[in-house]
Amino acid sequence: MRKIGLVMGSDSDLPVVERAIDTLKEYGVPFEVHVYSAHRTPVPAADFARNAREAGFGAIIAFAGKAAHLAGAIAANTTLPVVGVPVKSSNLDGIDALLSTVQMPSGIPVATVAIDGAVNAALLCIQMLAIEDKELAERLIAKRKEAEETVLAKNRKIEEQFNK
Amino acid sequence: MRKIGLVMGSDSDLPVVERAIDTLKEYGVPFEVHVYSAHRTPVPAADFARNAREAGFGAIIAFAGKAAHLAGAIAANTTLPVVGVPVKSSNLDGIDALLSTVQMPSGIPVATVAIDGAVNAALLCIQMLAIEDKELAERLIAKRKEAEETVLAKNRKIEEQFNK
Amino acid sequence: MRKIGLVMGSDSDLPVVERAIDTLKEYGVPFEVHVYSAHRTPVPAADFARNAREAGFGAIIAFAGKAAHLAGAIAANTTLPVVGVPVKSSNLDGIDALLSTVQMPSGIPVATVAIDGAVNAALLCIQMLAIEDKELAERLIAKRKEAEETVLAKNRKIEEQFNK
Amino acid sequence: MRKIGLVMGSDSDLPVVERAIDTLKEYGVPFEVHVYSAHRTPVPAADFARNAREAGFGAIIAFAGKAAHLAGAIAANTTLPVVGVPVKSSNLDGIDALLSTVQMPSGIPVATVAIDGAVNAALLCIQMLAIEDKELAERLIAKRKEAEETVLAKNRKIEEQFNK
Amino acid sequence: MRKIGLVMGSDSDLPVVERAIDTLKEYGVPFEVHVYSAHRTPVPAADFARNAREAGFGAIIAFAGKAAHLAGAIAANTTLPVVGVPVKSSNLDGIDALLSTVQMPSGIPVATVAIDGAVNAALLCIQMLAIEDKELAERLIAKRKEAEETVLAKNRKIEEQFNK
Amino acid sequence: MRKIGLVMGSDSDLPVVERAIDTLKEYGVPFEVHVYSAHRTPVPAADFARNAREAGFGAIIAFAGKAAHLAGAIAANTTLPVVGVPVKSSNLDGIDALLSTVQMPSGIPVATVAIDGAVNAALLCIQMLAIEDKELAERLIAKRKEAEETVLAKNRKIEEQFNK
Amino acid sequence: MRKIGLVMGSDSDLPVVERAIDTLKEYGVPFEVHVYSAHRTPVPAADFARNAREAGFGAIIAFAGKAAHLAGAIAANTTLPVVGVPVKSSNLDGIDALLSTVQMPSGIPVATVAIDGAVNAALLCIQMLAIEDKELAERLIAKRKEAEETVLAKNRKIEEQFNK
Amino acid sequence: MRKIGLVMGSDSDLPVVERAIDTLKEYGVPFEVHVYSAHRTPVPAADFARNAREAGFGAIIAFAGKAAHLAGAIAANTTLPVVGVPVKSSNLDGIDALLSTVQMPSGIPVATVAIDGAVNAALLCIQMLAIEDKELAERLIAKRKEAEETVLAKNRKIEEQFNK
Repeated sequence: MRKIGLVMGSDSDLPVVERAIDTLKEYGVPFEVHVYSAHRTPVPAADFARNAREAGFGAIIAFAGKAAHLAGAIAANTTLPVVGVPVKSSNLDGIDALLSTVQMPSGIPVATVAIDGAVNAALLCIQMLAIEDKELAERLIAKRKEAEETVLAKNRKIEEQFNK
Repeated sequence: MRKIGLVMGSDSDLPVVERAIDTLKEYGVPFEVHVYSAHRTPVPAADFARNAREAGFGAIIAFAGKAAHLAGAIAANTTLPVVGVPVKSSNLDGIDALLSTVQMPSGIPVATVAIDGAVNAALLCIQMLAIEDKELAERLIAKRKEAEETVLAKNRKIEEQFNK
Repeated sequence: MRKIGLVMGSDSDLPVVERAIDTLKEYGVPFEVHVYSAHRTPVPAADFARNAREAGFGAIIAFAGKAAHLAGAIAANTTLPVVGVPVKSSNLDGIDALLSTVQMPSGIPVATVAIDGAVNAALLCIQMLAIEDKELAERLIAKRKEAEETVLAKNRKIEEQFNK
Repeated sequence: MRKIGLVMGSDSDLPVVERAIDTLKEYGVPFEVHVYSAHRTPVPAADFARNAREAGFGAIIAFAGKAAHLAGAIAANTTLPVVGVPVKSSNLDGIDALLSTVQMPSGIPVATVAIDGAVNAALLCIQMLAIEDKELAERLIAKRKEAEETVLAKNRKIEEQFNK
Repeated sequence: MRKIGLVMGSDSDLPVVERAIDTLKEYGVPFEVHVYSAHRTPVPAADFARNAREAGFGAIIAFAGKAAHLAGAIAANTTLPVVGVPVKSSNLDGIDALLSTVQMPSGIPVATVAIDGAVNAALLCIQMLAIEDKELAERLIAKRKEAEETVLAKNRKIEEQFNK
Repeated sequence: MRKIGLVMGSDSDLPVVERAIDTLKEYGVPFEVHVYSAHRTPVPAADFARNAREAGFGAIIAFAGKAAHLAGAIAANTTLPVVGVPVKSSNLDGIDALLSTVQMPSGIPVATVAIDGAVNAALLCIQMLAIEDKELAERLIAKRKEAEETVLAKNRKIEEQFNK
Repeated sequence: MRKIGLVMGSDSDLPVVERAIDTLKEYGVPFEVHVYSAHRTPVPAADFARNAREAGFGAIIAFAGKAAHLAGAIAANTTLPVVGVPVKSSNLDGIDALLSTVQMPSGIPVATVAIDGAVNAALLCIQMLAIEDKELAERLIAKRKEAEETVLAKNRKIEEQFNK
Repeated sequence: MRKIGLVMGSDSDLPVVERAIDTLKEYGVPFEVHVYSAHRTPVPAADFARNAREAGFGAIIAFAGKAAHLAGAIAANTTLPVVGVPVKSSNLDGIDALLSTVQMPSGIPVATVAIDGAVNAALLCIQMLAIEDKELAERLIAKRKEAEETVLAKNRKIEEQFNK
């Protein structure tokens, strides 16, 4: 199975990144984690992206805050799908990171998820790998079912508490 | 090759959708187009999503404006990757559609692109299919090169005009 | 008397929902509480909405945060009045939930109240029931009067403190 | 049947108001139209609200732009349900009117719809009247069905055009 | 000397209001404080405004949060100058209160100050009274001078600390 | 009677300024108009403000767009009341000018009106002069009455058209 | 004299860029113009930046819209001062470009000017060169004086028209 | 070497200013610190700016919050480069300070950095001085290299922790 690359712009983003790591582990999807800054280490960041397809990556998740250029910088150097996670790390509640990540020009897409949406970024990559991987697809379907059951169980608990 | 589903919430979104269609055609990627509203036809929208994987789809692009729920409603009913295109169709310049599309809760991802970012939505789906499709991957790389050449040609023209 | 349905997208919304429950109890209006997520349990959510009129509901309040689709998803499946409460549960102070709830397309209304405005959501439903229910209308008028008296009492206290 | 009151803050709002009027006519719901400004004619505006229940109104729709106080001023003087339509009439795309209408304090609800959402405001009032009016409820259900058919017809047309 | 009316929409605004009171006391300008809500006590609020000129007021300051209609409701019922203080009391950092206060329609002005800008609201009223009151004008000038001196003293302290 | 100073940051603001001029003429209030930029002519702008009280001004209106510092720069150099009109002259619909004008620090108030709210700026100054000028106060009251009549006449026309 | 590099992300930005060119010509400051996209031609963009100091550049201006990464991408590869001009080229009035340009992380500054603020970007570079260039500094002072005179001439014209 | 002027609008900005001071010290660049408010001490602020070039300054950094006019007021009185640091000191997360600082009119540039971006403001000034100062340029390049190494070290640590 192709592995997922997780690149954070700063190691202060690690608490958010770890939620994506947990999700990938939960699905048994292989991954690699790196710290590459679009601004402080532009060359290794670009090199990583340029070599990613040959290095066996299937998709890349980039985590960055403020003027969040990392996802775009990765996407500019690969044709693998790149998922961008805007990280809340400034005074502006992450709206700066969201707009910097999502408003990409035609030709260089970044698949953007919610501010701090690390779990969904991981799920999105798993969904991509599952397009042609039946077993993984079935795991996604099973876990979706589980999540549904969890909500329904909560519903029953609330119903018992309030609706007699 | 798996096909791409394009679902628009209203046929007034067609001018935006057609830019995605053109991109898919350019790459020879098969697709299907539908009009299903999350609010006006919730049952066919959900049915389409629920059957999409078995019907041979690889990914789905949802186009919607204002309180843009279509991508989320599709994503709630499939584990295929869903790309959301926030369409500018209200007084608020599309910021309402962007937030309604991107701020999804954990567990149900939507890969969001820029407001009216139809070309990138199509490219993102092509990139997903190209993870395991070498030929398609090479076409992506070749066209990326072409785009680069176009910019460099423009650069030469501007350089000639201004830098003697 | 027809009962009010309260549906929350996540049980983490319960503290907000309870303020609506308290208001309904204060007026002796019957209600039922459920946890149904537009994204994690789309089928039970739609089923609940589709059967709500026959099940004796008069109006439904939906509570949801972030890309808050719940009120819209309920409204898409019933012609009962649906009140949407945008819940602050993301980094964006609830503005994402507000726009996702209020900017509905023509044909599928959602009566939106303030961010976390659970009390007013309950009052709005009581006002709807009171259109044809004189006794309930009188209770609304009496309690409005009481609220006025409370403000005037506070005014007298402030006046005594500051205006000699 | 109780009638719907439509109050606009300025006669420049009439083009928006007329879309609500058309909807009410379509359903055969009686209505009255007035121009009362919360700021320029506060006394008649409050008087209208105070007498509305006795005058046979079932709900009131208030249309206003900018610092849109009309819905709140009406709601402060009646316990009938009040629907607020934020009208885009300033430089700020109606976001000022939206926040001025929706962010009401506890105790005085305003059921807010989308910016310029006149059709939905009318539908919301019809839905309120239809809680206890079976015939009107059936008309709502029938027209909802029609709207669904319209989308499905558009879908078939698009499918024919693009999916051979 | 004409007195200044301070009206707060809720007694929870008192901590902000007290900063205005302190400023008025500092200048020896007479004042009266009231709690009148535009929504919960619309009649006393309007009555207060209507009688304010005859009751010896020279200007009125209104403090309110969220959909802050109080200043507008006061201004609608008097031709005295009305100063509006948007109070931060909601999830939206006071931007809702600011827009609800400042975006008034032509004909009914509200002199708006910064969010929670109680001191400046008081100073503005004092400046209005000082147009024709030389002594008060001189006090304003003297205190402005003092404030300048305070900054210059801080400057000297900082200069000593950093610029040797 | 003291005169009103109107200062615009750029002569491109004149169309907005002229609405204030018309209002002042309507009330027979004397005025002077100037073009002084806080940034391009800081010295004359400050000089004007510093001498304004002695030169017979009662209040000053400052009109400026973008990073609208003019009102603040005037207010920093006088203790006369200063009214700020944020002018829409940039890409940002005037929200930049609004925040630059209204968010003044404690000690230096600017009475801010709506974006492009020139008429209300003039009315505010007239209201200030009318605190101690009975005749002017009566003119304000009479014209307020006229404005009320205008709305009521429009109401009657709309009532005739729609409510038979 | 060191020359100024002007880099635009797309040749559609040329109308904005030309205003900077005109300003540089007015001051006789040498310059070079290029089209390099941070996303479509990341390698030549980085190469240009890396060689800029040795190639005789003194400062670089980057023009870009939407998720405007160009200025940051240039700044990541040079220690010359980089000025960023956010270009309005999307639905969001340029606020996306502004935040993407200005919210840079510690260590990699971008000197940001107003949306479409090309003239000021050029002036800023000229001011930088003028720190050690007396003649250029004098030209700046002379032209500042001229600009002041232009405003004062407009002031005299307005004064004649309105203040008799 | 020319020195850098640091001017803060209020001594409450000192914690932000000190980060700029530390950066300047790190590079051995001389500086002076002052407290001058655009609004409370407009005359010393303007005087400082007017004399700055002759007093040996090479660039000035202005720190201010809310309606942050200080950078603009300094820039209006000097042709030295002025860097503006919007300081978060109000309810609005610094967006008011950002727009007040960056949206300057043509002719009077302010080089704006991120909200609270003191380190980058200092670096920008050092970069300006380094245009003609080889040694300083080399220090910038060396420290940039160090920062790169720091990120790469963090990367190795993260790689060891997660990628076995």
